[in-house]
Amino acid sequence: MKQNKYDDPEFFETYSRMPRSVGGLEKASEWPALRALLPDLRGKHVLDLGCGYGWHCRFIASQNAASVIGVDISEKMLQRARESTFDPRIKYHQTAIEDIDFPDGKFDAVFSSLALHYVKNFDAVCEKVYRCLAAKGVFVMSVEHPIFTSLAAQQWCESADGNQLHWPVDHYQDEGIRHTSWLADDVIKYHRTLATYINTLLDCGFQISKLLEPQPSPEMIRQNPEMKDESRRPIFLLIAANKKEKK
Amino acid sequence: MKQNKYDDPEFFETYSRMPRSVGGLEKASEWPALRALLPDLRGKHVLDLGCGYGWHCRFIASQNAASVIGVDISEKMLQRARESTFDPRIKYHQTAIEDIDFPDGKFDAVFSSLALHYVKNFDAVCEKVYRCLAAKGVFVMSVEHPIFTSLAAQQWCESADGNQLHWPVDHYQDEGIRHTSWLADDVIKYHRTLATYINTLLDCGFQISKLLEPQPSPEMIRQNPEMKDESRRPIFLLIAANKKEKK
Repeated sequence: MKQNKYDDPEFFETYSRMPRSVGGLEKASEWPALRALLPDLRGKHVLDLGCGYGWHCRFIASQNAASVIGVDISEKMLQRARESTFDPRIKYHQTAIEDIDFPDGKFDAVFSSLALHYVKNFDAVCEKVYRCLAAKGVFVMSVEHPIFTSLAAQQWCESADGNQLHWPVDHYQDEGIRHTSWLADDVIKYHRTLATYINTLLDCGFQISKLLEPQPSPEMIRQNPEMKDESRRPIFLLIAANKKEKK
Repeated sequence: MKQNKYDDPEFFETYSRMPRSVGGLEKASEWPALRALLPDLRGKHVLDLGCGYGWHCRFIASQNAASVIGVDISEKMLQRARESTFDPRIKYHQTAIEDIDFPDGKFDAVFSSLALHYVKNFDAVCEKVYRCLAAKGVFVMSVEHPIFTSLAAQQWCESADGNQLHWPVDHYQDEGIRHTSWLADDVIKYHRTLATYINTLLDCGFQISKLLEPQPSPEMIRQNPEMKDESRRPIFLLIAANKKEKK
């Protein structure tokens, strides 16, 4: 059963007040790193898995992509995306990421920002991404980092007086469901080890071309002092992979 | 200045009493995973960086390799290696890993077990490994995992009564020297992020073919109950990479 937390009115309302929901890509600390992983998008056909408000779809279109399809499970997210989009090259589909069904070789690039840690079967999604990519197509993805998802609490270990002592890791090898409390109670995420992310991509027929664990720029920390501890542990894992011809 | 802790008599003595020093590969919990990364070694010319007692050199020779060169900075380690080796296909060189200087394309495989976290400049070593590998050569390496090296203490966070609460991560993005206390005071290791390990290999011209974060087998935990917490966080990072032709 796929969770659709973003269509929960209370969750949606809380999410809509996040800096990145209001301010878009410029308020997402990992955006410069993620953007750097994107290939030249001119004339390309691109799929965005878990597109949310459509910020990335609109950015991709602005780079002169030929077409962009944004997929999301949430009707509310897509409603907001459509209200903010005036570009006929961008289409939105309400579908769970796991359920995509596009023709083989349809896309030059598949993109996914902070959505795949909500997906139970990463291997099945990778297979679908591989198939719907054209030869030499590119898959650029970000997820919450395994260091960040290993414990469901996703909280710093704090001293009695509230100092952030360190980031706790535990149950790292126990992959699977995590009942987290992110913006609301019981938001279901899936923890996977780094080895699983990498080897699943390799087993599907991808080559890894870059892996990033970005931290906010000094400028972003100056503007957002609450980000000062972000260099103490990685929160995001970004991977760029290329479709390799299967032997 | 390269540290040569293994030639410190007290450190050497302590190291020589470790289970893996006495019992060899079968006592190393990561050995089955590391072994699985090795290519077919029949007739191959192999280099082992940081060979220590030569356990891996002798294993590689036992797989019908044509020749094996083991390199180590420590005279004491190599003395023990030579005393335990009766195979003329195996040669040992006393050299720091950073100072290797072999002809281009000399080896079919380069191997390194738990030595590269002692090396300051991973990029320079990778370049040398790339050059001394033949076309389509394989580089198989293990290091202490970045989750394990981020804090110099390398200790569980414990409750007042000595329970292991979780593994602490901090200073993850601050790469560089760690003054650890492993078997002795001030053993110098180098922390690198996962992104640095992966991207350095890619930038040198390698393709990643597999990445492992092994945990001890149930059988090994039964024999060594002190390993029961090893699945709570990864301690080792294993990478297999292939030499790709440079464009």
